[in-house]
Amino acid sequence: MKKDGGGRKFVLGVDIGGTKIGICIGTFEGRFIARRRLQTKVDEGEARVLDEVVRSAYDILNEAGLTLKDVLGIGVSAPGPLDPREGVLFSAPNLPGWRNVPLRGIFEEAFGVPVYVENDANASALAEWWFGAGKGCKHMIFLTMSTGIGGGMILDGRLYRGSTFNAGEVGHQVVLPDGPLCGCGKRGCLEALCSGGGIARRLKGCVRRGETLMWDMVRGDLDRLSAKVLTDAVRKGDPFAKEFLDETLRYLAQGLANLVFILNPEMIVLGTIVAKEPDLFLEPLRRLMKEMVWDEHLKGLEVVSARLGDEIGDYASFSIVLNELNSTTLKALERREEE
Amino acid sequence: MKKDGGGRKFVLGVDIGGTKIGICIGTFEGRFIARRRLQTKVDEGEARVLDEVVRSAYDILNEAGLTLKDVLGIGVSAPGPLDPREGVLFSAPNLPGWRNVPLRGIFEEAFGVPVYVENDANASALAEWWFGAGKGCKHMIFLTMSTGIGGGMILDGRLYRGSTFNAGEVGHQVVLPDGPLCGCGKRGCLEALCSGGGIARRLKGCVRRGETLMWDMVRGDLDRLSAKVLTDAVRKGDPFAKEFLDETLRYLAQGLANLVFILNPEMIVLGTIVAKEPDLFLEPLRRLMKEMVWDEHLKGLEVVSARLGDEIGDYASFSIVLNELNSTTLKALERREEE
Repeated sequence: MKKDGGGRKFVLGVDIGGTKIGICIGTFEGRFIARRRLQTKVDEGEARVLDEVVRSAYDILNEAGLTLKDVLGIGVSAPGPLDPREGVLFSAPNLPGWRNVPLRGIFEEAFGVPVYVENDANASALAEWWFGAGKGCKHMIFLTMSTGIGGGMILDGRLYRGSTFNAGEVGHQVVLPDGPLCGCGKRGCLEALCSGGGIARRLKGCVRRGETLMWDMVRGDLDRLSAKVLTDAVRKGDPFAKEFLDETLRYLAQGLANLVFILNPEMIVLGTIVAKEPDLFLEPLRRLMKEMVWDEHLKGLEVVSARLGDEIGDYASFSIVLNELNSTTLKALERREEE
Repeated sequence: MKKDGGGRKFVLGVDIGGTKIGICIGTFEGRFIARRRLQTKVDEGEARVLDEVVRSAYDILNEAGLTLKDVLGIGVSAPGPLDPREGVLFSAPNLPGWRNVPLRGIFEEAFGVPVYVENDANASALAEWWFGAGKGCKHMIFLTMSTGIGGGMILDGRLYRGSTFNAGEVGHQVVLPDGPLCGCGKRGCLEALCSGGGIARRLKGCVRRGETLMWDMVRGDLDRLSAKVLTDAVRKGDPFAKEFLDETLRYLAQGLANLVFILNPEMIVLGTIVAKEPDLFLEPLRRLMKEMVWDEHLKGLEVVSARLGDEIGDYASFSIVLNELNSTTLKALERREEE
């Protein structure tokens, strides 16, 4: 396997999710040349799924008029827990049956190019740091808030992974002891209260006919309750929904305030739910945090929404490669290119 | 000011506390040559106090047969918040009247030797990392638990200070919303529940005559209640005290579990209260954390007590210098010494 990278300046990214897989080719600067999206046919087993990824990657390389000689590295973003050093995915709740999958080994064999694997929360944090809201900052915490709440942290200008690569599980700090049951088995985790899934479950426990518009919006089918239904009801002026959102925001602000006391970041980047409707979340959060956090910590602290939207997965897989190739290598390559 | 350090191999440490100031001289390896302790006469104002520190430092240098030419650097540990880059102490609750004190400037002028300033929680974390329980580990969280709860964090093999040098305020994460009032004005902070001061205040709110030995132990003077009275009563078999301690341990375990989810450390080092009576704290904490934390995070995690005891302040001021002089500098000096 050639590792010197002479003349190579493209990056291949693979973003493995529970329902979709994104594959893309682009430049170091984050300009995409070609992309493709596949359904994750989990039932067919990991071998078939990864075979299809490999074929698709060769396809889009061809389409782009490139070969593997143009590719400096491959970044693979996948749900965790995983070992980024060995590139092995241990297991993932939304990829049932996948156990100890040697992603790096499989892709290095298929492509003969260095492969770097990172968990999706960390990779998304890197993406927002390299290309999105966190550009140029040194201490950044990124939170995704969809089904669950994941986190990735840039501390002192580099990704922080922790001793067994499981740092950043910010969604499993307990903000309400004896609160609602979390998917992880504990009670009152931030995730159980403020993730999309947590909000839906909490709504299900309290939405009643005649008390809120939300009942009518889902026509009494409580399984259709969601964060989106909640925010739609808030926009329609439903007082029950407004109060529920306020309570949710207090829990979220509490979780963020804890992070601020512990990590004193300069930026908190909130993705997914918050990024889709920033007006309903950001201002109230900033106001609540002013009450909860000391002035020393507020100094220079920004709470913002993620910028990369639906493209975050592609940027995430890219960013993994950028993160691994230190700037020296990149500069050396640039110089060689120029000569 | 001479910065090359040729031939110098001693370190001067100053540990400024609200009641005492420790001054010491020693070698890089942490061998003390001379030490002195002063009372902090806060009422006399910072200028007089610091003058006395300077005089005492010259005294112990003389006693040790050394001069400033033998001193490579001076480490100053002080309560915060402070700016370690500029070496300015902004203010400190236990040093009333001290405002924006340019510690580095004052000591550099007095000694003509490089001065490094760090807040005491960070400096203590460095001390346990260089000389105590955390030797050789890469991800360590240190908690002091006396009047308040302070923290210092070694992340990825270096001290983490945060964007405005206020990281590590682990005592001000909220573990019990609407819980007891904390000195910081919030409710339910870990510090309000589990610090020595917090324990004393909580005891005061619930100790009644006839219900617990603790009433008799303090002869009804509730102001004398303390963590020490609590643990003494537990050792005497008082059920009320036992239940109170169990509750306290649950709060503490919750706070530590939150830190583990966020930071995935390999070691948590607990000082002060815990270090004095480890048998009452460590085993129950480890057991509780096993219930609260996932296996991935428990892997290789150690929860231990601090090792440096009452000497931690001296080691702390030393460690500040060691931390600032990178290993290259130290090695260069060693080589020069050997020649």
